[in-house]
Amino acid sequence: MAGAAKRKSSTNRAAIIALDLGGTKLASAIFTPTGRPLAKSYTELNARQGADVGELVVETVQRLATIAAKRALNLRAIGVSVPGIVKPRTARIWAPNIPGWDDYPLAEALRKAMPRSKLSVAIESDRAASMLGEVWRGAARNCRNAVFLAVGTGIGAGLLIDGKVVAGANGSAGAIGWWGLDRPFRPEYKTRGCFESHASGHGIGAVAKAALNERQRYRGQLPREELTAHDVFTAYASGDTLAEDTIATAIEFWGLACANLVSLLNPEKIIFGGGVFGPATQFIDEITREAERWAQPIAMQQVRLEASKLGPEAALYGAAYLALERSRLFNAAQWPKELNDETR
Amino acid sequence: MAGAAKRKSSTNRAAIIALDLGGTKLASAIFTPTGRPLAKSYTELNARQGADVGELVVETVQRLATIAAKRALNLRAIGVSVPGIVKPRTARIWAPNIPGWDDYPLAEALRKAMPRSKLSVAIESDRAASMLGEVWRGAARNCRNAVFLAVGTGIGAGLLIDGKVVAGANGSAGAIGWWGLDRPFRPEYKTRGCFESHASGHGIGAVAKAALNERQRYRGQLPREELTAHDVFTAYASGDTLAEDTIATAIEFWGLACANLVSLLNPEKIIFGGGVFGPATQFIDEITREAERWAQPIAMQQVRLEASKLGPEAALYGAAYLALERSRLFNAAQWPKELNDETR
Repeated sequence: MAGAAKRKSSTNRAAIIALDLGGTKLASAIFTPTGRPLAKSYTELNARQGADVGELVVETVQRLATIAAKRALNLRAIGVSVPGIVKPRTARIWAPNIPGWDDYPLAEALRKAMPRSKLSVAIESDRAASMLGEVWRGAARNCRNAVFLAVGTGIGAGLLIDGKVVAGANGSAGAIGWWGLDRPFRPEYKTRGCFESHASGHGIGAVAKAALNERQRYRGQLPREELTAHDVFTAYASGDTLAEDTIATAIEFWGLACANLVSLLNPEKIIFGGGVFGPATQFIDEITREAERWAQPIAMQQVRLEASKLGPEAALYGAAYLALERSRLFNAAQWPKELNDETR
Repeated sequence: MAGAAKRKSSTNRAAIIALDLGGTKLASAIFTPTGRPLAKSYTELNARQGADVGELVVETVQRLATIAAKRALNLRAIGVSVPGIVKPRTARIWAPNIPGWDDYPLAEALRKAMPRSKLSVAIESDRAASMLGEVWRGAARNCRNAVFLAVGTGIGAGLLIDGKVVAGANGSAGAIGWWGLDRPFRPEYKTRGCFESHASGHGIGAVAKAALNERQRYRGQLPREELTAHDVFTAYASGDTLAEDTIATAIEFWGLACANLVSLLNPEKIIFGGGVFGPATQFIDEITREAERWAQPIAMQQVRLEASKLGPEAALYGAAYLALERSRLFNAAQWPKELNDETR
């Protein structure tokens, strides 16, 4: 009896560390196998660059390991979501918004910092992690084919195909901000792609600014300097017609992109996340109607477009999922159905 | 010694039947595990519909089984490529170009026709089968992430992701002819999608015809009645400017579609097949240059655009691959690298 109780207790007290590294902040928590977060915290990166960001990640892990030890938790693995690409052969990180992270050996840094532990480390791109988070605990539960469409400053997509997130031949799959959805080619597409130029947070601000420059007689509330997507959504709410036009065009692009995802991948769900969804969640019905004009009609009937349920925590939950899967704290073969049943 | 020789002989004489059912013809052959086709033949469907097409498939299998028996071949499985969708739960077939095949139980018909055999039956869409054929014996050898872009009367794509062909939630993945690549929406996109309206065999004929109707003074070689893509390619070869314009636009659409596949899926190769490639193979360099304008730049550097090596036989080889895999005549876990090494 004592032996069985001890074994049960040891399983019950297993836990992992999850980290979501963004371009400006680091979110972290300890997670139990049932998906309960402990000691969740957020740290601003401030002006940190290169190895200093790696150092912050290491310190965060060490701090959480100390907390875990005090609570007699048995740490098994670390899961990390990164704002960039995990290179397939080396597992090094390319993160365009962290200066000095062209080829950063994050897993190596973590293993070196904790030499006596046998923690395994799992790292994925933020788009892939967000998709996994939504499958595990969010809007894509029970899905085996889904897309997480992350619309923030930029646009990226996490792709779940036959129950697995995919990375492509060299880790860059999901670079959907580069999708060409409107001919002819314009010079501004060269820096950030067509879709992103029209319908990302950055793009919405830029499109509204260009329209303002053409309408010198505009007397609405949009500022002529430092105009952001946030300003456009605020002006939209008070009926500003320039903001309405800008958002109507963005809706067309979001709908068209969803239609093309539906025709190509025949997914069960497309989940909208990122800072823009947020405020643009109110337009999901309109986006769906726009998608219905373009998409393969049968596949369109089989998909649902929905907002993220985890919001800014999608990637953190995805990182937790990665670590739990890596440490075999749940059976990957039965995922996602069994897992979801267990953790609901 | 005799026992060992007999076992070896039994393995050596294993074989499968491969069938490629198209909208107008049925191709078939017996294949050995090393990829050698025997008794290859083609039959026109003529006016056959519904169950008569199923009957033709069954007769073809029975005929090949008789040949196999005469040659003392040990048949293990049947692989079939179909011009439509294999429904995931029922394995029934929806094939829009075969009247009466909305929900056709092809696997059931084959099993009923050969009640005493234990042949297993594997069925895939023609786009998935073509992709597998090219991975096994064609232009995509050793690839784990690739796209087969089939441009014929319509346009479809076979998707190889992390070494597997994918079908989506309901079997319709790859319906890329429905991709929207040019705003605004036009009424003709409702029937066959935007990409297909501009750049399929049907689309190229229709675009040239519409241009002809606008140029009443045109005195070139293109016929005003029953104008086909074939006519356009022939006129292009003799320097007809209307044909040149039509094809230049098609090249833009093919390039844009390839760019979007590259940005989303980060594949190693895109293989062009179908009747239009064929004559359009001469434009692959131009298509590549067009794709380079739009695609995520790093992923674009990592992809190669190439013509199919198997041409009209890609789907037949893919069907053979399916049957060999199903009958475990090679080790699926080691595919594609080991397999390719063995069969080169």
